Amino acid sequence: TATTGKILAQTDGPCTNHWLVGVDKSVETINDMVQRTKVKAGLDPDTPLHSLGMSLSGGDQKDAIQKLIEEMGQRFPKLSQSYFISTDAIGAMATASDCGGIVVISGTGSNCKLVNPDGSQVGCGGWGHMMGDEGSAFWISHQAVKAVFDAKDNFVPPPHDITYVKKAMEDYFQVSDLMGMLPHFYRNFQKSHFAGFCRKLAEGASAGDALCQHIFTQAGKLLAKHIVAVLPQAQQTLFSGELGLPILCEGAVWGSWELMKSGFTEVLAEAKASGFHHLRGYSLMTLCKSSALGGAKLGAQNVGAVLPLDYQANVNVFYRHSFTNQ
Amino acid sequence: TATTGKILAQTDGPCTNHWLVGVDKSVETINDMVQRTKVKAGLDPDTPLHSLGMSLSGGDQKDAIQKLIEEMGQRFPKLSQSYFISTDAIGAMATASDCGGIVVISGTGSNCKLVNPDGSQVGCGGWGHMMGDEGSAFWISHQAVKAVFDAKDNFVPPPHDITYVKKAMEDYFQVSDLMGMLPHFYRNFQKSHFAGFCRKLAEGASAGDALCQHIFTQAGKLLAKHIVAVLPQAQQTLFSGELGLPILCEGAVWGSWELMKSGFTEVLAEAKASGFHHLRGYSLMTLCKSSALGGAKLGAQNVGAVLPLDYQANVNVFYRHSFTNQ
Repeated sequence: TATTGKILAQTDGPCTNHWLVGVDKSVETINDMVQRTKVKAGLDPDTPLHSLGMSLSGGDQKDAIQKLIEEMGQRFPKLSQSYFISTDAIGAMATASDCGGIVVISGTGSNCKLVNPDGSQVGCGGWGHMMGDEGSAFWISHQAVKAVFDAKDNFVPPPHDITYVKKAMEDYFQVSDLMGMLPHFYRNFQKSHFAGFCRKLAEGASAGDALCQHIFTQAGKLLAKHIVAVLPQAQQTLFSGELGLPILCEGAVWGSWELMKSGFTEVLAEAKASGFHHLRGYSLMTLCKSSALGGAKLGAQNVGAVLPLDYQANVNVFYRHSFTNQ
Repeated sequence: TATTGKILAQTDGPCTNHWLVGVDKSVETINDMVQRTKVKAGLDPDTPLHSLGMSLSGGDQKDAIQKLIEEMGQRFPKLSQSYFISTDAIGAMATASDCGGIVVISGTGSNCKLVNPDGSQVGCGGWGHMMGDEGSAFWISHQAVKAVFDAKDNFVPPPHDITYVKKAMEDYFQVSDLMGMLPHFYRNFQKSHFAGFCRKLAEGASAGDALCQHIFTQAGKLLAKHIVAVLPQAQQTLFSGELGLPILCEGAVWGSWELMKSGFTEVLAEAKASGFHHLRGYSLMTLCKSSALGGAKLGAQNVGAVLPLDYQANVNVFYRHSFTNQ
């Protein structure tokens, strides 16, 4: 039975973020994926699931989530008896641990959520590119482009030579001057394409370009600052595990951890020094399983069932830091 | 005749920014306004003007301007024999002076242009809200909203209490929490509406709110930084007039000059101290005539004619600063 926490079947499908594709398309895609998965698992597609737990990016706003659930219930009565929707951050955390921790997402955008052992949550960021997205791929790309504009304008002196970044910008965006960038900011703005420039900057940083390295160091600082922002609300037991504070890192920018490491560790060391004495150490980990697993667990929990997960098998610890001067 | 520089007739009409309304609508609006003005001035609407000089916001990009002019020539052969389009900044400067100066626009967005006595130009800013717009109404509104978000997130401590700004934000945008702001940043984003929040912040600053005052001081610094950015390219004679460096201030944010004054004057004093010794003083002025006048003058100039303007009557000096310790 499902209460062993075994994966019976998996499938994937297109984007379900209702902010991006609309509610109609979102619920159709979800229904299609679940019905295909039932068949794969040898279940009757006409029998509703007991509970469908989902971890969705864009699963933040109560009213919108309520609407999504109502829509699914009305349009697809054979889909599931009950529904539970969590954000991607919460779903990821639930996949990694039963005792909470901090999840820091840095993909196209950025976001941070503290999940306490008692289930209470505190967030920092996640408001999108107009209100920050600090430390994300969008932010890194934006910082680089802005440095080129500010240098050409003589408005702000660049912290390092802009030659590599300017050339990379012209290549990536296929422009020959700054004016050519305007459609990329406005008429044809696509956040994911703009953020994709980050990959070229990671290459530059790895090849030794000082401006690229500087921006990634700043990104590391800002991602750590998200953690420091929620730290005062963390319950004591989060600090007492053998791994120290568990920090789950999601999103492609974490692939550039080595470039962000110095900035990231510096900010956490400062936080430790400035009063967070119970921060004896921390561990950074990534998921090696889908965060849908945690979403399913929370869905089961919502109807009083328990899905036991093998948390250790779900995560991969890639960095451990212990403050030895405690 | 027109070479006296007398205004024969004036009219107005809707937005002509081709980036906003499209080329078709832009040229139709221009044609309609000019034809109405010909009739008002007692001229035959079927006789083309000798030259139509225009000062247009969005008149920056050569290719786009060329397209606009071709379109007008083809669709409206009775409009004018020749065309000359300058940006709003250049048109404003041409209205204020024949010897150049620096124009700093701070309205919804911000922009700065140095026009040298020999006609050469150097710009700083003007790239829109995605790439700065520092010191503009958009920027001021954004700084205020961002301070509220950062404070609620515990991400960045606000420089001053956010109570007034938070309340003003909730009133202006008609929201009850931060989540409610998201449509104002994304789905329903309207730059001019977002920037309109600046008026409430000016009210707050005038009533003594420290956070509002702080943001306006920063805006003053950043507008002055635009000037410092172009200063190295300014020709000597710009500094030698009796008014000192002439700075033409355009846009509604300059109505809050008293709120920006301390930041603005501080940055120029620093520039003076740090090496711009020939900056013996400066004068801030606004236009009391339309910048279309300067656009017309440049249009006449373009066909070898001279439109003499009474520059002193076109401007109003509202602040003079002289560095006495030279």
